[in-house]
Amino acid sequence: MFKINENYLKLPGSYLFSTIGKKVAAFTKANPDKKIIRLGIGDVTQPLAPAIIEALHSAVDEMGQAETFHGYAPDLGYEFLREAIAKNDYKDRGCQIAADEIFVSDGAKCDSANIQEIFSGDSKIAVCDPVYPVYVDSNVMAGRTGAYDPKSETWSDVIYMPCTADNDFVPEFPKETPDLIYLCYPNNPTGSTLTKDQLQQWVDYANKNGSVIIYDAAYEAYISQENVPHTIYECTGARTCAIELRSFSKNAGFTGTRLGFTVIPKELKCKDVALHALWARRHGTKYNGAPYIVQKAGEAVYSEQGKAQLKEQVAYYMKNASTILEGLKSAGYQVSGGVNAPYIWMQTPKGINSWEFFDYLLEKANVVGTPGAGFGPSGEGCFRLTAFGTYENTLAAMERIRQL
Amino acid sequence: MFKINENYLKLPGSYLFSTIGKKVAAFTKANPDKKIIRLGIGDVTQPLAPAIIEALHSAVDEMGQAETFHGYAPDLGYEFLREAIAKNDYKDRGCQIAADEIFVSDGAKCDSANIQEIFSGDSKIAVCDPVYPVYVDSNVMAGRTGAYDPKSETWSDVIYMPCTADNDFVPEFPKETPDLIYLCYPNNPTGSTLTKDQLQQWVDYANKNGSVIIYDAAYEAYISQENVPHTIYECTGARTCAIELRSFSKNAGFTGTRLGFTVIPKELKCKDVALHALWARRHGTKYNGAPYIVQKAGEAVYSEQGKAQLKEQVAYYMKNASTILEGLKSAGYQVSGGVNAPYIWMQTPKGINSWEFFDYLLEKANVVGTPGAGFGPSGEGCFRLTAFGTYENTLAAMERIRQL
Repeated sequence: MFKINENYLKLPGSYLFSTIGKKVAAFTKANPDKKIIRLGIGDVTQPLAPAIIEALHSAVDEMGQAETFHGYAPDLGYEFLREAIAKNDYKDRGCQIAADEIFVSDGAKCDSANIQEIFSGDSKIAVCDPVYPVYVDSNVMAGRTGAYDPKSETWSDVIYMPCTADNDFVPEFPKETPDLIYLCYPNNPTGSTLTKDQLQQWVDYANKNGSVIIYDAAYEAYISQENVPHTIYECTGARTCAIELRSFSKNAGFTGTRLGFTVIPKELKCKDVALHALWARRHGTKYNGAPYIVQKAGEAVYSEQGKAQLKEQVAYYMKNASTILEGLKSAGYQVSGGVNAPYIWMQTPKGINSWEFFDYLLEKANVVGTPGAGFGPSGEGCFRLTAFGTYENTLAAMERIRQL
Repeated sequence: MFKINENYLKLPGSYLFSTIGKKVAAFTKANPDKKIIRLGIGDVTQPLAPAIIEALHSAVDEMGQAETFHGYAPDLGYEFLREAIAKNDYKDRGCQIAADEIFVSDGAKCDSANIQEIFSGDSKIAVCDPVYPVYVDSNVMAGRTGAYDPKSETWSDVIYMPCTADNDFVPEFPKETPDLIYLCYPNNPTGSTLTKDQLQQWVDYANKNGSVIIYDAAYEAYISQENVPHTIYECTGARTCAIELRSFSKNAGFTGTRLGFTVIPKELKCKDVALHALWARRHGTKYNGAPYIVQKAGEAVYSEQGKAQLKEQVAYYMKNASTILEGLKSAGYQVSGGVNAPYIWMQTPKGINSWEFFDYLLEKANVVGTPGAGFGPSGEGCFRLTAFGTYENTLAAMERIRQL
């Protein structure tokens, strides 16, 4: 009789955002007259920018003519896109990343879930706490995380690095040396950042200890302050210790269009084996490229028009962020984030845990947020709101929360 | 110091089609004046059908307006697409598959590589030989295949089921009971099929022995003869033992557009754990859906216009298939396939192995095919040509081969 991957059974409950989706669906069914405002999942609401729409139409036309039809994409992605990324995201910031160190994919969620595959099954992972659930869950599925303790909501073989208001959301170096360190900055869910000096210390730590940093920079476009690094490759030595994950979801509204990329510098090696070669092998064997039309849309993100339009789009969401920040403050809540990130992190009222606060907000204000506990034990007592709604809804949500 | 997944290092050489791509690129560079005809990789050449282009344009327009913009897709895929699949591919063939047993993805290659993840690490796999390389390679990466013997080009822990002209390309039941049985019909690379009775025997075998059949039906649209099953769910009992993988690449030309799906019936269980639940968890955690615009394109495949246009497209390729079949026969080769599949399987001339024949055809006729050895040891002495070229190129290739 065949057997299943028992690690899947260790996962408690369902994926966080699936759970939220089900709760909201049940509430909507029971209360069809209530107008829900969704500031929970990090999904965007603004339409694709005109330059991207134009690129998509043009690429669709190409697909309809034999002379310009495109079949299977190159394993790493089309060169036109990889060159645009290398120039705009790296060279223009003074970072040396070659086009052939960039792997185009269908999004940072998949990449962040799949990247663990190229590492040893007994790799020790370290994550910030709270954290984007995919980093831990994908390692649970791979059997790396040991036993789950439902009381503390932690895994025995995962190194947790608490990031709370007490340490200004900056993780401390762990006592035990990790093999893989997941860092996400600007941070999901707390909206916090590291300074360049702070990130440099992590790069130095990784190089000294033989760790790999998996650096999720999906929210890079929201950085507004100086001295916050846009890419880990701004740090000296990052080419020998860091993989960077990037997304088009939040800077260009591609949550339903699907595009991302992973950077693996060729110097990043375990003895003489380049991780670049392993990931290339994975791409070639288990993946078949992002659609041509979507890669053309990605190219348009870097056009002059595209850049100007997306700057406005990011500004629109950041206006929401400051609306939420100010709204919650004036309602008496303790808040952080929202300055270099589209996420606002708030403390729940005393004596109310984060899932209770979720239900309370949903029922009383018909506003959907994300319970901090869904991101890890140190997220308990906190709650995430996102700036990705419309401005009108964001204003309305603040008004409702103020009136509670 | 971090460690890598050592299983990757066991993989001999690179992914088959990457190797071919590199060989062709090198030849083209050295012979820029030669006009290469590519009948190697199974990539299509006909443009997307008008109904699909229209659906894409319309969906792109939706993405450009806030009112009709689409962000993250539902975990399993949009219901409009899953309902169209359930009706057209299953209900209309008398098979009971519900829309919520269908998982939309970005292609059958990814699904066929990822599906092994939900099974135990010590699962024993059985594959036809020759076989699509992804089934074995993805299991190598997961550490299931034991040691590689370069001499026999086999893995110690894989059950090989030879499919050659001697047994009419029909695999025999293995002596050792496998946990997972990969079957692909119409077959890649041999172009052969199983009758419904033959497939029923495999379903009975799997149910009796507690095996799961992973049934890759990517080439279903090419079936022209009666009594060849279009889906494994035509067989009694398949709902308790079979997962089916389907693709839009070959029936609708989506190789560069990316869409596929996996069917897992809810009755397919290991003790009380439904594989459906495990795959749903994987989808929710490690995947983020196919693009909305591509799912709309997939819906158009099932429209009346779309169906009519794609019937013509398939007929176009099948005309190529018979051109190749007849051409090779008249050039004195022994051939099979090409009747219910877009692949033609030929015996290489005596004393010439399949990679030698690859080089020979590339150099002398400037025609690219795929060496049988790339698909497994029993593929040695054979060679695959595909019907996915243009008709003109296919004719020209046959002329060149006849003149050798």
